[in-house]
Amino acid sequence: MKVGDLKGTTIGLLASGGLDSCTITHWLNELDVKVICFTADLGQPDETDFSTIEARMRACGAADFVGVDLRRDVAALGLEGIQAQACYESRYWNVTGLGRQATTAGILPHVKTKGLSILAHGATGRGNDQVRFQLIANMLDPTVQVYAPWRDEAFLNRFGGRVQMIDYCQQHRLPIKASRNKPYSTDANLLGLTHEAGELESLDTPAELVTPEMGVWAKDAPDQGEVFTVRFERGQPVEINGRSVDIVGAILQSNEIGGRHGIGIGVHMVENRFVGVKSRGVYEQPGMELLGSCYGFLLHLVLDRRARELFDMLSLQFAKQVYQGYYNDLASQMIRSAVARVSALVSGTVTVMLYKGVVSYVSTEAVPHSLYTLDSSMEREGNFDHRDSEGLLRVLAVHAKALAARGQVNP
Amino acid sequence: MKVGDLKGTTIGLLASGGLDSCTITHWLNELDVKVICFTADLGQPDETDFSTIEARMRACGAADFVGVDLRRDVAALGLEGIQAQACYESRYWNVTGLGRQATTAGILPHVKTKGLSILAHGATGRGNDQVRFQLIANMLDPTVQVYAPWRDEAFLNRFGGRVQMIDYCQQHRLPIKASRNKPYSTDANLLGLTHEAGELESLDTPAELVTPEMGVWAKDAPDQGEVFTVRFERGQPVEINGRSVDIVGAILQSNEIGGRHGIGIGVHMVENRFVGVKSRGVYEQPGMELLGSCYGFLLHLVLDRRARELFDMLSLQFAKQVYQGYYNDLASQMIRSAVARVSALVSGTVTVMLYKGVVSYVSTEAVPHSLYTLDSSMEREGNFDHRDSEGLLRVLAVHAKALAARGQVNP
Amino acid sequence: MKVGDLKGTTIGLLASGGLDSCTITHWLNELDVKVICFTADLGQPDETDFSTIEARMRACGAADFVGVDLRRDVAALGLEGIQAQACYESRYWNVTGLGRQATTAGILPHVKTKGLSILAHGATGRGNDQVRFQLIANMLDPTVQVYAPWRDEAFLNRFGGRVQMIDYCQQHRLPIKASRNKPYSTDANLLGLTHEAGELESLDTPAELVTPEMGVWAKDAPDQGEVFTVRFERGQPVEINGRSVDIVGAILQSNEIGGRHGIGIGVHMVENRFVGVKSRGVYEQPGMELLGSCYGFLLHLVLDRRARELFDMLSLQFAKQVYQGYYNDLASQMIRSAVARVSALVSGTVTVMLYKGVVSYVSTEAVPHSLYTLDSSMEREGNFDHRDSEGLLRVLAVHAKALAARGQVNP
Amino acid sequence: MKVGDLKGTTIGLLASGGLDSCTITHWLNELDVKVICFTADLGQPDETDFSTIEARMRACGAADFVGVDLRRDVAALGLEGIQAQACYESRYWNVTGLGRQATTAGILPHVKTKGLSILAHGATGRGNDQVRFQLIANMLDPTVQVYAPWRDEAFLNRFGGRVQMIDYCQQHRLPIKASRNKPYSTDANLLGLTHEAGELESLDTPAELVTPEMGVWAKDAPDQGEVFTVRFERGQPVEINGRSVDIVGAILQSNEIGGRHGIGIGVHMVENRFVGVKSRGVYEQPGMELLGSCYGFLLHLVLDRRARELFDMLSLQFAKQVYQGYYNDLASQMIRSAVARVSALVSGTVTVMLYKGVVSYVSTEAVPHSLYTLDSSMEREGNFDHRDSEGLLRVLAVHAKALAARGQVNP
Repeated sequence: MKVGDLKGTTIGLLASGGLDSCTITHWLNELDVKVICFTADLGQPDETDFSTIEARMRACGAADFVGVDLRRDVAALGLEGIQAQACYESRYWNVTGLGRQATTAGILPHVKTKGLSILAHGATGRGNDQVRFQLIANMLDPTVQVYAPWRDEAFLNRFGGRVQMIDYCQQHRLPIKASRNKPYSTDANLLGLTHEAGELESLDTPAELVTPEMGVWAKDAPDQGEVFTVRFERGQPVEINGRSVDIVGAILQSNEIGGRHGIGIGVHMVENRFVGVKSRGVYEQPGMELLGSCYGFLLHLVLDRRARELFDMLSLQFAKQVYQGYYNDLASQMIRSAVARVSALVSGTVTVMLYKGVVSYVSTEAVPHSLYTLDSSMEREGNFDHRDSEGLLRVLAVHAKALAARGQVNP
Repeated sequence: MKVGDLKGTTIGLLASGGLDSCTITHWLNELDVKVICFTADLGQPDETDFSTIEARMRACGAADFVGVDLRRDVAALGLEGIQAQACYESRYWNVTGLGRQATTAGILPHVKTKGLSILAHGATGRGNDQVRFQLIANMLDPTVQVYAPWRDEAFLNRFGGRVQMIDYCQQHRLPIKASRNKPYSTDANLLGLTHEAGELESLDTPAELVTPEMGVWAKDAPDQGEVFTVRFERGQPVEINGRSVDIVGAILQSNEIGGRHGIGIGVHMVENRFVGVKSRGVYEQPGMELLGSCYGFLLHLVLDRRARELFDMLSLQFAKQVYQGYYNDLASQMIRSAVARVSALVSGTVTVMLYKGVVSYVSTEAVPHSLYTLDSSMEREGNFDHRDSEGLLRVLAVHAKALAARGQVNP
Repeated sequence: MKVGDLKGTTIGLLASGGLDSCTITHWLNELDVKVICFTADLGQPDETDFSTIEARMRACGAADFVGVDLRRDVAALGLEGIQAQACYESRYWNVTGLGRQATTAGILPHVKTKGLSILAHGATGRGNDQVRFQLIANMLDPTVQVYAPWRDEAFLNRFGGRVQMIDYCQQHRLPIKASRNKPYSTDANLLGLTHEAGELESLDTPAELVTPEMGVWAKDAPDQGEVFTVRFERGQPVEINGRSVDIVGAILQSNEIGGRHGIGIGVHMVENRFVGVKSRGVYEQPGMELLGSCYGFLLHLVLDRRARELFDMLSLQFAKQVYQGYYNDLASQMIRSAVARVSALVSGTVTVMLYKGVVSYVSTEAVPHSLYTLDSSMEREGNFDHRDSEGLLRVLAVHAKALAARGQVNP
Repeated sequence: MKVGDLKGTTIGLLASGGLDSCTITHWLNELDVKVICFTADLGQPDETDFSTIEARMRACGAADFVGVDLRRDVAALGLEGIQAQACYESRYWNVTGLGRQATTAGILPHVKTKGLSILAHGATGRGNDQVRFQLIANMLDPTVQVYAPWRDEAFLNRFGGRVQMIDYCQQHRLPIKASRNKPYSTDANLLGLTHEAGELESLDTPAELVTPEMGVWAKDAPDQGEVFTVRFERGQPVEINGRSVDIVGAILQSNEIGGRHGIGIGVHMVENRFVGVKSRGVYEQPGMELLGSCYGFLLHLVLDRRARELFDMLSLQFAKQVYQGYYNDLASQMIRSAVARVSALVSGTVTVMLYKGVVSYVSTEAVPHSLYTLDSSMEREGNFDHRDSEGLLRVLAVHAKALAARGQVNP
């Protein structure tokens, strides 16, 4: 889509209230496109209230403003990530991917209520977010068109980057937020922060360039560790340190407690984007890392070998699905149904120690579906009779010897 | 096999020189089975020299003794684990599994040289080691029989466990090593230590019961971190902190440097054993964790999305194969050939910071096969034209809309 | 378990009413073990009625007899196989594996009702069925013990094979069925027949040794093909050739119609058994093959690329799970939940042509979730704009060129 | 790329010599783009000789013509497909995908020799071939640009489809081949034919619309079957019906023999294209199907359970890789290395019966790496002692009972 196609229409804009939102709103207005701004509250640490953002967007020319509270939605998605242990390319809990799902799915109904059929966003043409917005919107409502100024010749000719946008806003006296001039950009929601671009692009820039916003670097964490206890019931965190929590509370508290010990703060990644280029990010995801680790300790007790093998494979797939914006397709539905069978068995209390960025196991209790049984492996007690293994081993030996005899071992 | 079948023959025994070795050797002798002891030097931290072990085993009745230096073998296998990033059930570098492969493969030719066709080992009937010894031995030489006293009625009736063995040895004045009476048992080689059984069996026993032998707990590590640099060439570590190393040296140095910062020290796991029961272990694997992490940082640069996805899946499979003693079968050969294609591309220097148990990325240089390219994602530079994404997204949208239109999204 | 452990008790026996059942029942009786026989009606072609079998088993000494109609159960399991397209090692629809699941799960409650805690079966110690009976029984009721005479020294010493059993039965005047002396053995249920052992063991024996019981060899099929139409609704076959069917009827009719055209008749396989040896089988599975092919044609329309990839992988896993007797474990539950998401989308009518063993596509109609759209690929019509691909291809090219530039293509 | 960018340059064109080639060559000439035509001989059944094509292309304005014999290349790729048993979405041997790899890889060096850096092709913007040409060319030579008229506004405005092209050629008196006016289009090489588009797009058009060119429909095949014997040596077919063959000969003979019995003739598929739409094709692939089936019978003997499981998964992946044009990337290299380990073990002779479209197993001989062993499963002979299974089963039971006891079975 090009801006020329929009002339005279009213469109929705996913607006964070930042520099991009202000610039795009005003620029579209200039070109005779009416803009209604939609802002999601995902519990991001730097969230100002809706009224401030609304005032700012209206000052930039927005015809209307809709703020939607999606904290519960994004927390629920975060829990799905935890339940699937779905880290993209090994270390990233997909906090932005899950946030995009929450935002798009949560705002789309409001876009329809306003009678709009075009949704714009400020994501660039090289990133994953454009893919996620497009796929999520089109799958949830195939009648919605998506417009991305950062892929539009006209916009790109007008604005080369951040500097030109600031000039533009100042020139038009738009009330852009006086932001600390960070040497990188950040996406935030209550699940975590992703920092990338700017100086972080150089692989020689250490992750420490980032000033953590959800906690401290491990080296700045207290010299005294802290014990943390969480109880899960059928895959849901229901109690932290002995007090009841809902899922939003569980993540917020885990963020706070984990963050102050450097858990999940400043994770460096170079990852494969959907479009086929690599990007470097530095992540803060203290609650996801903390709850995810605790959940993992329970999974170690619950999953047998076959379930583990399948689960590990589905974890990888689900992380990819969410990362690429395919949370709603059939493959994701299949994985989520499979993972739900596991989650239903994950009940129990886990206690861990938090110290300098590391979550260490302390103990577990009341894990009804645990397959772990005390059975001294050196003694003859228990229901496992060591002599039975003689038969097992003889059976295994038949196959092993056949491999050797038929020249399959060192061919 | 039962001891009755062995009467009058000479067999080989995989002997560590510990309580089991002494007891088994003497007991077999009493029952008219001649025993030749084979001991591997895997660079285990507590290794005493061969002559001491030989003297002890001969005193217990061994007819002969063969010591084999397998440090290079086990280091090479450790590197294969690193190259495949093969951690079993997420956190365990398979240090014992790799050690069993080195020992069995390395000792088998000497067993044959001595003209023996029966090999005994002291592994129990509930563990993985019995499976590994059997499968590895039978695949590498299908004419070898394996005898395991701990699955033999006669032995089990005579010896219920550790206490009876100590009594037996004292009664026969066998020179058992005066060992610190650890409340758990340990398997060791230069790749790492696995502690399990005894008091560790209780999931309420924190991992801290273990006294680390390859380093310190994170909390006891220096308050000052340490920079560590390693250069890989075609998948091989060739330089550490600017000085040339071979693979044995690389692992030993990484053990020492990593260990003193608590890297990979005291990893708690509950894992699925081959025989279908779960066991709890506490691991020390500083060098594997340190080199493995550095290698992982290079893989992030080298593997594209498709290769990553396949690699991750093969990693899981290879970890399972090694853990279960199938290092030599066709499936393992297939995986190793596939991984070798990746290793050939892993060259470059990685610098990391070691601090309180955590390995953090600092920088990389000279990575010829890196796919990472500097390209400000907010700017229009680079060879990636953001406008092209408009076409890509429109193509993706066709499919996404079809899913929605045909009722596949929220069925 | 050994027969000595059973003395004076009453046990259940899975009895087909054949030579094994007669021999085992009488032999156990002689050794002071009371036997209650349980027979499942799985709709096997050669099924005689329960009263005949009961009379025979009582004549052999059975203290009681319970016949259970499990045709619906096995048909429902067959449908699950079809829905998962789960063929073991590529060609075998697991008809015996599914039958064992139906039998064990269906008979176990009756065993409990009779107050028994030991269940015996006549499966050998080298096959898969012993594994299936054991795993299914133990998972569904961990208090049940399984006794297998064919692994018991005492039984093996008494009976070397078929010949000794016939002698024994004749000597004791047991009413064994005067069976055609087939040169192989057969397992049957309404899903299909598996023929193996005897002369079929030689790989030089062509499958044609088998006399088909569910249809004809392709060469004996009519020269005129036959059109077959089936309508599926949410994964269930509901109509065949325009007339309503339930699942039992669907399979029976498909058996008959497919069988007369040689569909799925005489499939040769050499497969990997659970115990690690290979076996050769010849299968008849006309209905499974016919309905499974029709279902597959619908899946081609419904599954997008990602769902297909995941589905194919789960198919392989599910086939293995069922084959090995793990239908009830967590991994199977996960797969079944995932597959159920797909089945819910499989509605529509498929028409095929049956001719000389081959099922050929003719047409489909009314497939609401089909993703197939008419769109002349040579013309500019449709919602897919060929010019958009230019952007897509340019995006793909960036990655492809990077692979080349960084030496990853022909290293 | 747009034609405007090419003005005044010389480019290469992948030319089949058909309507597209003629139209594009002449049209480019008109717009001041010089064209050198490159034609591959892939052994397609309808191949006319190079001199005829050259004459025709020169008459259309080609500045130069290069014909390249790639029959051996495409046959070698076909063999790789067979060795990997790589069928895309279950039934398609990727004959066009393999052909594109052969063509692009084989012609690229000649394009460079002529000093050209732009390569054009006549593939449409909705198909897979554009993706394959682009990816293969860019990976093998990142300096080559690809131009596709069918994605270029100018060309699309000029030519809506086949009709306009014929008009154009007649108007300019271009020597287009007087082709039978088939109601579908065909791509051909010695591995097979793919028919699609036109009337085949309707799912109500039976595959029988197609007139087979590589054999006959099963119903037209002889009533007498034919025996076929092939010997493989380390994965290579070396002898057919007792006479030596090379790989090209093996495929040609298999095409002929298989084709006359309807093997692999007229396979209907609806498949997922790379761009996310489905297409319907009808395939002829007699040799691939015949040799592939024979190879499969050997694999049944050679692959143990673990190797089979991995192999099946890699088969799926490799089929996808080739289908999508990623034959040259790292993931494909990994798979090919893994599969090569298997191929090295595939030696032996297979005899099959061909009858009315079906390949049936007859016998195998001299398969040195076969794991199949004769061992009457009802008797006590052989090296597998049935009593050993008692131990195996007891070990399995411990796990099965634990699943039940911990509420994991029917949760």
